[in-house]
Amino acid sequence: MLNIMANKVAVYRKEHFNAAHRLHNQMLSADENQQLFGKCNLPNYHGHNYELIVKVVGEIDPKTGYVIDTKILSDLVNEHVISKFDHKNLNMDVPEFKHLNPTAENIAIVIFNILRSLLSEQLTLQIRLYETPRNFVEYPAT
Amino acid sequence: MLNIMANKVAVYRKEHFNAAHRLHNQMLSADENQQLFGKCNLPNYHGHNYELIVKVVGEIDPKTGYVIDTKILSDLVNEHVISKFDHKNLNMDVPEFKHLNPTAENIAIVIFNILRSLLSEQLTLQIRLYETPRNFVEYPAT
Amino acid sequence: MLNIMANKVAVYRKEHFNAAHRLHNQMLSADENQQLFGKCNLPNYHGHNYELIVKVVGEIDPKTGYVIDTKILSDLVNEHVISKFDHKNLNMDVPEFKHLNPTAENIAIVIFNILRSLLSEQLTLQIRLYETPRNFVEYPAT
Amino acid sequence: MLNIMANKVAVYRKEHFNAAHRLHNQMLSADENQQLFGKCNLPNYHGHNYELIVKVVGEIDPKTGYVIDTKILSDLVNEHVISKFDHKNLNMDVPEFKHLNPTAENIAIVIFNILRSLLSEQLTLQIRLYETPRNFVEYPAT
Amino acid sequence: MLNIMANKVAVYRKEHFNAAHRLHNQMLSADENQQLFGKCNLPNYHGHNYELIVKVVGEIDPKTGYVIDTKILSDLVNEHVISKFDHKNLNMDVPEFKHLNPTAENIAIVIFNILRSLLSEQLTLQIRLYETPRNFVEYPAT
Amino acid sequence: MLNIMANKVAVYRKEHFNAAHRLHNQMLSADENQQLFGKCNLPNYHGHNYELIVKVVGEIDPKTGYVIDTKILSDLVNEHVISKFDHKNLNMDVPEFKHLNPTAENIAIVIFNILRSLLSEQLTLQIRLYETPRNFVEYPAT
Repeated sequence: MLNIMANKVAVYRKEHFNAAHRLHNQMLSADENQQLFGKCNLPNYHGHNYELIVKVVGEIDPKTGYVIDTKILSDLVNEHVISKFDHKNLNMDVPEFKHLNPTAENIAIVIFNILRSLLSEQLTLQIRLYETPRNFVEYPAT
Repeated sequence: MLNIMANKVAVYRKEHFNAAHRLHNQMLSADENQQLFGKCNLPNYHGHNYELIVKVVGEIDPKTGYVIDTKILSDLVNEHVISKFDHKNLNMDVPEFKHLNPTAENIAIVIFNILRSLLSEQLTLQIRLYETPRNFVEYPAT
Repeated sequence: MLNIMANKVAVYRKEHFNAAHRLHNQMLSADENQQLFGKCNLPNYHGHNYELIVKVVGEIDPKTGYVIDTKILSDLVNEHVISKFDHKNLNMDVPEFKHLNPTAENIAIVIFNILRSLLSEQLTLQIRLYETPRNFVEYPAT
Repeated sequence: MLNIMANKVAVYRKEHFNAAHRLHNQMLSADENQQLFGKCNLPNYHGHNYELIVKVVGEIDPKTGYVIDTKILSDLVNEHVISKFDHKNLNMDVPEFKHLNPTAENIAIVIFNILRSLLSEQLTLQIRLYETPRNFVEYPAT
Repeated sequence: MLNIMANKVAVYRKEHFNAAHRLHNQMLSADENQQLFGKCNLPNYHGHNYELIVKVVGEIDPKTGYVIDTKILSDLVNEHVISKFDHKNLNMDVPEFKHLNPTAENIAIVIFNILRSLLSEQLTLQIRLYETPRNFVEYPAT
Repeated sequence: MLNIMANKVAVYRKEHFNAAHRLHNQMLSADENQQLFGKCNLPNYHGHNYELIVKVVGEIDPKTGYVIDTKILSDLVNEHVISKFDHKNLNMDVPEFKHLNPTAENIAIVIFNILRSLLSEQLTLQIRLYETPRNFVEYPAT
């Protein structure tokens, strides 16, 4: 049986940001990092066009016909996520990654935590993050 | 644990339609509508290339190797949804929206209700509707 | 031999707008319009997510390494085209189509004429307009 | 309530292969096959650019920040699936379809079974397979 | 200077077909074929979702605002190309490839020749054919 | 009249690389750089998933039916461009940008120059480079 929420609708909003990063675990040696992360560990950073899809699930407000106004959702994501990550070096410029390896998995969790606190508890939140068109992650997993 | 249906397969079919609409709640004043819906409320309508993805979940028929023949599914969607919505003004030409605001959320529910009655009860149905590549909805939410 | 411009670079910027329209030639009868344009002539309008690609060709400015700053190009397109067309009814709200049938061909020429006057004569301009992912036009043709 | 796995992340990797196939149930007559599968049953095969998305769900390894290294996942998929299916005739060259109709549904299950045995039991696996951009399947269904 | 046709517009229509093929030059030995074409020469065929973009350049008809009605263009392409190629084995089922290697280059030329004879001499024709999203060709070259 | 090469075919091959960069003209002051390039000038770099489309125009070799084997073309691009740019910092790691601002325009010219010397003079070359899906360039311009 599908675990559906029969009177709930999911709303998705897609945003993007361009950032530099490198994969590096500060607790490990240079050799171990090189072995674990290969070219993703190269010292001078590389970068991606990250595509971010924010999913919000809830009941429709009968006044608006919306679960959430995607304009409001977009503004929220831009103010609290995109402005912080876009055209930045994730390792150097974003405090959350000072001691956290900026893998797609960890970036998705950081974004989830930022947005979770800004949304009504009535709304369920899920983050999908594309690092490239071929590599992407989702948090929390369904 | 994933809520999977171990012996079930999901089949997806993508269709599209082009329609005009405006967002407007007939119970509210012009000012309230303008405040809630902004440019989506402009009086002379705007429009979208809607992309519709119909998801049908069920067991594989051992005779065909199909859950459902996507040709049959496509014909069903075209006869009962696309022919009704395509190249139409949703507010003016589609009776379901005579008193219902044609937000993406509400359009998805209307399409779900049309198709639900046409499919076997053995099959689970879910609708994904793209209003634009950056704004889309899913009903029922998973 | 390719008709290339060996020291020139083409720069492309993609924008979009959502609009309603109907195809209709005011000089023809209702029957002739219906025969020529079929469902595209339906009286209450339909709509599209138009994707607009603006191509500008010129020499690289050695100071910036740009032919044109795509931020400046995007602002120009948004101020003079998108703000005029987005969430509008092309037939009713955009003066250029008061007596001009808003086919993709004609919309592309109208956009070309708006932007041509705003760009330096050193720069060559071409417009590509997607009415749907399957139907698109280019002006001037190459 | 969403059936989320709060401390788990889903990782997706996209691969592709090009293959020929025809739909045909060996237990049925030529007429029945023609009636069931139409042009998909034509005797000399047709083909597709199959897009394969492998989804792996698990907990993040604190050492790497990965659920699974997508390079390792990609190598696994290439070695055990792509090399077997790519530029092949599914009906004639892939033993699993000797007596199994190569519908998208059945191909997805075959791929699932190949990969399931190669991944840690801690990891949940799901396969999405695009036969065309408009027809795709998922196994197991969620 | 751009080689533009100042009062001409290009109209594009996208169609698709799914077909099997193998690359093979009948004048060469099996070894030479294997060396030249590698896995594309495998004996039992493989296949593709071919995406076909037909470009037609001409002047706008003032009565319709069209260079050519894309509905008419689409019908023409479907009747004379798609119906002949779709769900077929190009080597075995399409007479044009009885003695011609069905590379993307040659398929594009065959399609050009079919359509060229069906269009007014006032209209310029160009074919773009995607064998995969990463490999495509254009004929005649510009 | 179209400037077509009636017996020539264009072959396209798409590749990609992920790189970090910042826009910066070493001859200008920090303030001037900030004014010209805005957030693209931020000191710690950002990055992109660059999509590279290499276009090669020539006559079909009657032996192969190819203008150029896209496998050979892909190997050439990977050996001489992708391996040099992928997962690198363009400003710091790629010698060509030691004194050249890595705008999309300049990157395209650098790639053109690398590949031009590797291809037969019979073949015409053009580079298209996507910095993002909305910003892209072409060299030489047609």
